[in-house]
Amino acid sequence: MTAGALELLERARTGDAHAIARTLSMLENDENGAAELVRATHRDTGKASVIGVTGPPGGGKSTLVSALVGAYRARGDRVAVVAVDPSSPFSGGAILGDRIRMRERFLDEGVFIRSMASRGHSGGLARATKRVVDMLDALGYGVVIVETVGVGQEEVDVMRVADTVCLVTVPGLGDGIQAIKAGVLEVADVIVVNKTDRPGADETVRDLTLALSLGPNKPDVWRPPIVRTNAMTEEGVDALVAAVAKHGAWARSSGEAERRSTAAARAEIETLARESLYRRLLTRIGADRLDQAAAAVAHRQRDPYTAVEELLS
Amino acid sequence: MTAGALELLERARTGDAHAIARTLSMLENDENGAAELVRATHRDTGKASVIGVTGPPGGGKSTLVSALVGAYRARGDRVAVVAVDPSSPFSGGAILGDRIRMRERFLDEGVFIRSMASRGHSGGLARATKRVVDMLDALGYGVVIVETVGVGQEEVDVMRVADTVCLVTVPGLGDGIQAIKAGVLEVADVIVVNKTDRPGADETVRDLTLALSLGPNKPDVWRPPIVRTNAMTEEGVDALVAAVAKHGAWARSSGEAERRSTAAARAEIETLARESLYRRLLTRIGADRLDQAAAAVAHRQRDPYTAVEELLS
Repeated sequence: MTAGALELLERARTGDAHAIARTLSMLENDENGAAELVRATHRDTGKASVIGVTGPPGGGKSTLVSALVGAYRARGDRVAVVAVDPSSPFSGGAILGDRIRMRERFLDEGVFIRSMASRGHSGGLARATKRVVDMLDALGYGVVIVETVGVGQEEVDVMRVADTVCLVTVPGLGDGIQAIKAGVLEVADVIVVNKTDRPGADETVRDLTLALSLGPNKPDVWRPPIVRTNAMTEEGVDALVAAVAKHGAWARSSGEAERRSTAAARAEIETLARESLYRRLLTRIGADRLDQAAAAVAHRQRDPYTAVEELLS
Repeated sequence: MTAGALELLERARTGDAHAIARTLSMLENDENGAAELVRATHRDTGKASVIGVTGPPGGGKSTLVSALVGAYRARGDRVAVVAVDPSSPFSGGAILGDRIRMRERFLDEGVFIRSMASRGHSGGLARATKRVVDMLDALGYGVVIVETVGVGQEEVDVMRVADTVCLVTVPGLGDGIQAIKAGVLEVADVIVVNKTDRPGADETVRDLTLALSLGPNKPDVWRPPIVRTNAMTEEGVDALVAAVAKHGAWARSSGEAERRSTAAARAEIETLARESLYRRLLTRIGADRLDQAAAAVAHRQRDPYTAVEELLS
């Protein structure tokens, strides 16, 4: 098993797309060999620029991501796209069609595209995304774009893996703006108003400027710039690339990058420690005792705290 | 602290709304006293009928929940509503307005309404919801309605606390149906097509019937019925109450209720055990060593597995 994972990694390092995909699956599902892969690649991580792209459905995120891929490729960067769809727990759904179109556009060894749905990730979607991003980083993709669909808490958590989070909205989305105000604005580093050929673009920019002005007003805090794009015509995409680079430079010099990186490391350590301690407990007590405890709690013979005390004693 | 929690519980048992709200906050945030409350009430849980109401935004869920409250109140049940909004991590947002309107309608001691947003729940939103529902159950609310907004994975997890999950959609929602097909249909026990006065109701029922027919076709599996309602006029609400009761009876006789209850108990035991083990570890090693380990991983001096091995050794 160990030899298998490291052998796979060697092939992935040569650019073998099947081998890359297989290592990502091992990490996503925490299969045997995942620990080996993390140990062997951790030293090579931290080089990529990880760009999050999020926002309500209908904002043209896929087209914008596709335009971003083009812009970074034109600069010679190898680019990976991780498309995360928490609302699609078991099918992958609509997003797959977009991916296939994007893949056709970039039949290009410098572009790697990965779709992730929500189920089957031990420790949560955000953690699985972080591991996939780290592997792509270690494999030499200089830009990793993480795209999510929707505006829920899970998207916010996933976005925390990014160095720079771009929030994409469009004029006249109504409810969308409402959702943004309520949730995702907090994690946004760059705001993108896409489809600026639509009516109401100025009003949307004004609304967002107002919403942003309600945030904390500290001198050392990053103020998210608002970038207008029209992803279909690639208008504004270079300005977006520049805004992302500017935020990245600020994050490195201000200590924000260090703070995010340490927080991510702490979260991974906590998860691994909890898992490891719990696995040791299960080995010690056996699965039967856990089953009995669950049945006792379900039948109201024990409360869960007492049941756990008994298991740990 | 201990005396405080139990004293509060006594007041909650007399129907004191402030005391009830305070116990729910203690449980949601896992404050000191939460364990006491669980220990003192666990034996009294498992009596309520817990009804989940979920579906894409714009489906009229709030109006339907309001109509359901009216129907159960007319039968003499005490009813609690838990409104969960994962997409609103820090404001509570739009849902609050609905709650206030609902509260005005039921200025009635037999109705208790609680809003929950996503942040600050140790162990996740689904677990916090389960604890809130259990407390309301123990306090004698015979019907607890859990309503979520949106169609993401987090809503699916929250819905697992319900005995019966009602998925609400409306004619002509287009993308909504897409989202339903992709995700939440799997957890639905009853499908509600609301706003049947709108054009396209027959087509929506036909689409859903088709989507359902693609599921597993086993004789012992529950086939979700499709109920048509118009919540504004309360049309179909009695049929919905009947469908929920029928599913509840099937769940109890088929072993499904037992299976859900044991799965919930196991999840709670696992979470408490992991927490407890991790807390013991932190006490043993100290917070400084965790900080140092996180910094070492962030600076790529250690991989996270090695860091955890060192902490646990």
